[in-house]
Amino acid sequence: MRAFMDEHFLLDNGTAVDIYDHIKNLPIIDYHCHLNPAAITNNARFNGITELWLGGDHYKWRMMRHNGVPESHITGDAPAHEKFAAWCATLETAIGNPGYHWAHLELRNYFGFHGVVTKDNAAEIYAICNSQIESPDFNVHALLKKSRVEWLGTTDDPIDTLEHHKKIKEDNIPGVPKVIPSFRPSNAMDIEKPAFVEYISKLAAASGMAITGWDSLEAALVSRIDHFHNMDCRISDHALDPPVFNSVATKAQAEAALKKALAGDILTDCDIVAYKSVIMVMLGAEYAKRGWVMQLHMGAQRANNSRMLKLAGPDTGFDSMSDATFSLPLGQMLDAMEVKDALPKTVLYALNPTADDMLATMIGNFAGRGIKGRMQWGCPWWFNDNKPGMIKHLITLANHGMVANFIGMLTDSRSFISYPRHEYFRRILANQLGVWAESGDFPRNMDTLYKIAGDIAYYNVKGYFA
Amino acid sequence: MRAFMDEHFLLDNGTAVDIYDHIKNLPIIDYHCHLNPAAITNNARFNGITELWLGGDHYKWRMMRHNGVPESHITGDAPAHEKFAAWCATLETAIGNPGYHWAHLELRNYFGFHGVVTKDNAAEIYAICNSQIESPDFNVHALLKKSRVEWLGTTDDPIDTLEHHKKIKEDNIPGVPKVIPSFRPSNAMDIEKPAFVEYISKLAAASGMAITGWDSLEAALVSRIDHFHNMDCRISDHALDPPVFNSVATKAQAEAALKKALAGDILTDCDIVAYKSVIMVMLGAEYAKRGWVMQLHMGAQRANNSRMLKLAGPDTGFDSMSDATFSLPLGQMLDAMEVKDALPKTVLYALNPTADDMLATMIGNFAGRGIKGRMQWGCPWWFNDNKPGMIKHLITLANHGMVANFIGMLTDSRSFISYPRHEYFRRILANQLGVWAESGDFPRNMDTLYKIAGDIAYYNVKGYFA
Amino acid sequence: MRAFMDEHFLLDNGTAVDIYDHIKNLPIIDYHCHLNPAAITNNARFNGITELWLGGDHYKWRMMRHNGVPESHITGDAPAHEKFAAWCATLETAIGNPGYHWAHLELRNYFGFHGVVTKDNAAEIYAICNSQIESPDFNVHALLKKSRVEWLGTTDDPIDTLEHHKKIKEDNIPGVPKVIPSFRPSNAMDIEKPAFVEYISKLAAASGMAITGWDSLEAALVSRIDHFHNMDCRISDHALDPPVFNSVATKAQAEAALKKALAGDILTDCDIVAYKSVIMVMLGAEYAKRGWVMQLHMGAQRANNSRMLKLAGPDTGFDSMSDATFSLPLGQMLDAMEVKDALPKTVLYALNPTADDMLATMIGNFAGRGIKGRMQWGCPWWFNDNKPGMIKHLITLANHGMVANFIGMLTDSRSFISYPRHEYFRRILANQLGVWAESGDFPRNMDTLYKIAGDIAYYNVKGYFA
Repeated sequence: MRAFMDEHFLLDNGTAVDIYDHIKNLPIIDYHCHLNPAAITNNARFNGITELWLGGDHYKWRMMRHNGVPESHITGDAPAHEKFAAWCATLETAIGNPGYHWAHLELRNYFGFHGVVTKDNAAEIYAICNSQIESPDFNVHALLKKSRVEWLGTTDDPIDTLEHHKKIKEDNIPGVPKVIPSFRPSNAMDIEKPAFVEYISKLAAASGMAITGWDSLEAALVSRIDHFHNMDCRISDHALDPPVFNSVATKAQAEAALKKALAGDILTDCDIVAYKSVIMVMLGAEYAKRGWVMQLHMGAQRANNSRMLKLAGPDTGFDSMSDATFSLPLGQMLDAMEVKDALPKTVLYALNPTADDMLATMIGNFAGRGIKGRMQWGCPWWFNDNKPGMIKHLITLANHGMVANFIGMLTDSRSFISYPRHEYFRRILANQLGVWAESGDFPRNMDTLYKIAGDIAYYNVKGYFA
Repeated sequence: MRAFMDEHFLLDNGTAVDIYDHIKNLPIIDYHCHLNPAAITNNARFNGITELWLGGDHYKWRMMRHNGVPESHITGDAPAHEKFAAWCATLETAIGNPGYHWAHLELRNYFGFHGVVTKDNAAEIYAICNSQIESPDFNVHALLKKSRVEWLGTTDDPIDTLEHHKKIKEDNIPGVPKVIPSFRPSNAMDIEKPAFVEYISKLAAASGMAITGWDSLEAALVSRIDHFHNMDCRISDHALDPPVFNSVATKAQAEAALKKALAGDILTDCDIVAYKSVIMVMLGAEYAKRGWVMQLHMGAQRANNSRMLKLAGPDTGFDSMSDATFSLPLGQMLDAMEVKDALPKTVLYALNPTADDMLATMIGNFAGRGIKGRMQWGCPWWFNDNKPGMIKHLITLANHGMVANFIGMLTDSRSFISYPRHEYFRRILANQLGVWAESGDFPRNMDTLYKIAGDIAYYNVKGYFA
Repeated sequence: MRAFMDEHFLLDNGTAVDIYDHIKNLPIIDYHCHLNPAAITNNARFNGITELWLGGDHYKWRMMRHNGVPESHITGDAPAHEKFAAWCATLETAIGNPGYHWAHLELRNYFGFHGVVTKDNAAEIYAICNSQIESPDFNVHALLKKSRVEWLGTTDDPIDTLEHHKKIKEDNIPGVPKVIPSFRPSNAMDIEKPAFVEYISKLAAASGMAITGWDSLEAALVSRIDHFHNMDCRISDHALDPPVFNSVATKAQAEAALKKALAGDILTDCDIVAYKSVIMVMLGAEYAKRGWVMQLHMGAQRANNSRMLKLAGPDTGFDSMSDATFSLPLGQMLDAMEVKDALPKTVLYALNPTADDMLATMIGNFAGRGIKGRMQWGCPWWFNDNKPGMIKHLITLANHGMVANFIGMLTDSRSFISYPRHEYFRRILANQLGVWAESGDFPRNMDTLYKIAGDIAYYNVKGYFA
C-alpha cells in the first residue's frame, strides 16, 4: 500500500524512481499553450485563488457542472469564496480524475499545502492560498521562474501585432522565459463561418493590402507569416474539425469560393473543401520553406450546447470528441505537400482516442528524408491528458514507431500554475520506462534509459523547434 | 496464486475487500431489464434448469454456436438434458468469458453448487439444479426476494396495457419488488419498417383516437405517456440504430413523411430523418416535463443473419456492434432539446466501445443546471458487460467526469437469476476504488471510499429516478 | 526485477511457465505468409545478414525512417555494413517496439547471439551473422526445418502457375514443410485500378479462355480455383480496402460494369460496388463448395506517400490504418453468402484496432451450423502484431466468444527467419492463460489449461484447414 501522492507518486518500481530523479529538474519547454502574453508583459498578479484556479478553467467547470454546482458558482457572479468551496466539494470525490492530481500538485508546488482537499477544509485552503497570492512576489514572472520554463509557445491569430511578444523579448528579464508566438490561421481557413468576411477585412488591414482574390489573400497571409517569423515564430497550429481534403481542387476553384464568400453568396460543400484544401497546401509550403513546424489538431466537436454558448461564450466547457473519420483526407493532404517537397515537420493530435493507432501509423508514411522524428504523433490532448491516456500514448507510439524520438508534453493551458502537468508526465514516462526495464522487455541499461527519458522530457523538443 | 472464485473473487487488495464488505448487502435497483412482468404477476415457476438457463439467453446461445453445438441443441427441440450437457461442455473451456463467471455465481447463489462446471459433471449439476427447481419455493417471487431487488424496470411498448404492473402493485406482496414500466416507443419511431403502419393502427386503438396526421400521432403518444406515468413509469428507452438528426427538420416535414408512410408511399432518407428528428424532440420534451429519465441505446447492428432471423426470430443471438459514427447527430439532438429547456435527465449507452470516450465527454456538454449527475454515460452494455469492460468504463468515466455520481449497474436481462451481475459489478467497483487508494492515487480515507462505493452501488440510482 | 529476455521472457507467473513448457515444441503451421515459393524450391541462400534482415522488411524500414536514417541506407544502395549499422543504431533505443524483441529472438534462435544490439556492437554482430550465413547449411530448407514448420501458406495470384508449389511437393524433401498456395484474387476484384484491363487479359491467357462478359470471367476464375484446388490450396485471401457491398446488386449490373471497364469507359461508384459485390458472393460460393477457408483483410490505407511509391514501389512502408467504417457492408456481404448456404469458413482481420470488438462480435452472427470455430476473428495483423495487441486480442476474443477455438498465430512475413513470432505469441498466450488461472478467474486445472493452450497454438489450426 502506497501513501497518497508521496515522493514516489506514480513511480511503481525502483528503476522508475532513478529515471525520474534523473529528469525531474530538466527545464520545461511548453511549446503549445494558451497563456495570455499581455499577462507576461505586464507581470500580472492575481485577485485570489478563485481567479487563478477557476477564472478560465473549463476542465474544472465541467466537473463542477457534473457535480450539480449551479452556474452562478461556475461562470456566474457568486462570491469567490463560495465558488472555491463548491470546487473543493466537487474535488473531494473526484476519484480517478486527472484534475484531482493537478490540483494537489499545484497546491504543493506553488502554495506548500500538502493536505487533502475536502469540502471541510475549503475555507482553510482558501485562506492559505490567498495570503500567499497577496505577497509581493506572487506574480506571473515569479511563477514562470519557479516553474523552470525555458520557453513557451502561445497561440496567436495572424492579425495579432505580437506587440507583447516584442516587449517581452526587448525587456529580456532574467528568468522570464522566451515567449514564442504560434501562427493559428483558423479564422482565415473557416470560410463557412459567419465571421469570415469581417475577418478578411481585418486581415487586409493588418497586412496593409486589399484582399480581392486568391493572390492578394495569399500575399496577405504570407506577409503575416513573415511578421510572425520575424518575431521568432517557428510553429503553426490548425484546428481541423474535421480534416477535409480534395486532392484535385484547383486554385481557380478556391478563388471562386473565396469570391462567393466575400460577395455574401451561399457556399456549397465543394466550395468549402476546395478552399480549405488549396489554402492548406499553400500554407504548408510556406511553413516548410521557413523550417516551421505544423501542428494539426483534429477530432473536436465544439460548442455542442447552444444555450450555454449564448450565455457563457465559446471555450467554456461544452466541447467534446467527434467520431468523424478522417484518415483518408489527412493522408491525402500530407501527401499533397510531400509530393511537392513542401511538407513541414508536422505534429498530429487527435482528441478522440479512437484515432490513436491510426495517427501513430500515419506518421510513419511521411517519416524519413533523413530527419529524426520528422513526423510526430502529438502528446495526449485535452480529454486524454491523464494517467491512462499518457500510458496508452507511450505504449502505442512505442509499438508503432520510435517513442525515443517523441517531443513530449505540453500544457495546452490558460493557467500560469499548470506546469505540474509536466511533472505528472515525467513521472508517468519514468514509470513506463521502468516497467519495460524491470519486466525484462528491455535491458536495464541505465545510460540508455536516462538518454531516452531525457530526450523525451526535454532534449527532443529543444532540437525539434530549433 | 488465488483460489478459483473464492470469497475475495475479483478483489485484489485489502482496501477492496473492506469496500466490498461495506456495499455487498445493499439492495438492488435494476432500472433496466427485460423481465416479463406476467411472470412476476403469476409468480411463475420453471420447468428445469434448461428452461431457466437456456430458455431465452442469447449470450449462451452464441457461445454454444461458436463451440459447434448444433442448432437443435440451442433453439431446437433436443431433450433438455442434452441441451444442458452441450452448454456445460461449452462452458468448460470458456476461459475469459463473463458467462463463465455468471454461470458459476448463479450456481452458487441460487443452487448452492460450489464446484466447477465441466462436461463430465453436467448430469450431476442438472440433477442438483432440477431437484431444487422442483421445490415449492423456487419461484419468481422467491428468486427476487433472495436477490434483494428493491425495484426493477421492465421495457414496454407504448400500447402495453401495463395490466401486470398494475396487478403487482395492487397485490403489494411483501418482499416482491416494485416493478416499474419503461416507455420504449421504438415501433412508433421506426417509420422505415414494414410493420409501421400496422403498429400505428394498434397505437390508435390503444389510445382511443384516430391517427391521421402529426397532431393526432402526438396526442396518441402523449396519452400513452400519461398512462405510463400513472403506472409509475419514470423512464423511457430508445434504440437508435444509429442516431440520425436533422436540426432544421420541421413538423410539416415530419407530418408529410408520416402521411406518406400511412399511405404506403416510399419514403426518402430525408423523410425518415425528418420524422425521427421531430418525434424525438417532441418526446424528449414530454419526458422532461414529467421528470422522466431518457435512455438512449446506440450502436447495435441487428439481425445480421437473415437465414436465422427466419428460423429463430429476432433477439436470438445474431446482433453485433455497428461502427457507424453518430457524435454529430447525437449532439445536435440533445442540443435541440436543451435549447428549449426540454432535455430530460439522460443516460447514453453505446454498444461499440469505440464510442466510450466520445460519450463520456458528450455528457459533459449537457451536465449542469444544478442537477448532480444529470447526464449519465450508462454502464457497459451487452457485449461490454464483462470484467475488462467494467474496469474500462469506471476508469474512463472517472477521467472524463465524476465517477462518484454514476448510477451504476443494471442487468438488461431476461432471466430471474441474473442478479449476481450486480455482485460482479460491485466487486469490480470495490476493486477499482481499492486500486486507486492503494496505489497512492487517491487518499485511503475509508469514509470517502465507502461513500463513493455506496453511492455508485445503490444511492445514486435511488435518487436519480425519484 | 527480471533479467532482459531470459528463459521466462513474457512469462510472469508459474502457471504460465508450465503452460509454455507444454506448448513450446509443438510444430508451426504458418497458414498465411508472403514467403517466395521459388526460394523454397531453389533452397535459396542469403548474401549476408543485411539482405536477410533488411532486404524486404518494411517494419524495419519504417523504424529507420523515424530515426532519421537516410533512404540511401534503407532502400538505397549504401554498403551492406552501413545499412546494418544504421539499423542497429535505430534498434538500440527502440524501447517498447515488437521489432526489438523479434530481432533479439532471431539473433538467439538462428545465430546463437545472446547479447544486446547497440550501435557499438553492430560490426561485431554483422561479422557473427555473416560468418554463419556463409556456412553450407544456412539455407532456406535448413531454416524451415530448424523452425519446425509443418506447413506454410503462401499468397498467390490466380494467374500463378504454382509451378514452385508443384516442384516442392514433387521433391518431397524430408523436413521441408508442405507449401500450400492461397488464392488471392485482388487484381481481378479491383476493377477501379488502372491495371485491371491488362490483368483480365492475363487471366484469360492463364485460364485459356476469352473473357468478354460475366460468364466467361466467372468461368476463368473458377478454372483457376480448380487449378489451385488441385495444387492443395484450401485458403483464399481478400484485401478489402475497405469492404463495400450492395445487397441488391445484380449480375447484370456487375456485367455492365465489367464491360465498361474492358471498353475503357469511366466507372461510377455504383458500377464498382456492384461488380465487387457480385464477384465476392460468387467467389464465396466457390470457396464454400470446396471446403476452403476465406480470409478477409480489412482496414488498410495503402500507398499514402506518392513520392515514395514512385521511388520505392508498393509495400515499402508507406501504408497505415484506415478509419473508414464497414460493419454494415461486411455484415451484408457475409449474410448474402450465408442465406444461400454458401458462406465458407471465414477469418476476419482488421488493421485498425478500433474494429476489434466489432469483428469479435460480428463472427458470432455467423457462428453455428454445428461447426466449431467456423468463424474466426484473425490474429492481430501487421501493426497490431505486438505484445499489447496480442494480449488485447486474446482478452477481447475471450470476452466476446470462445478463445479456446482460436486458430492462433501466423507470421504474414516475407522473411525465412521470422518464426520466433510464433514463440512470441505462444509465450503471451501461455502468460494470459496463467493470469486468468492465478487470479482466481478460472480454475487452475492444468489439463484444461494445457488443452486450451495446445489447441490455440497448434491443434485448432491443424483441424481448421483440413
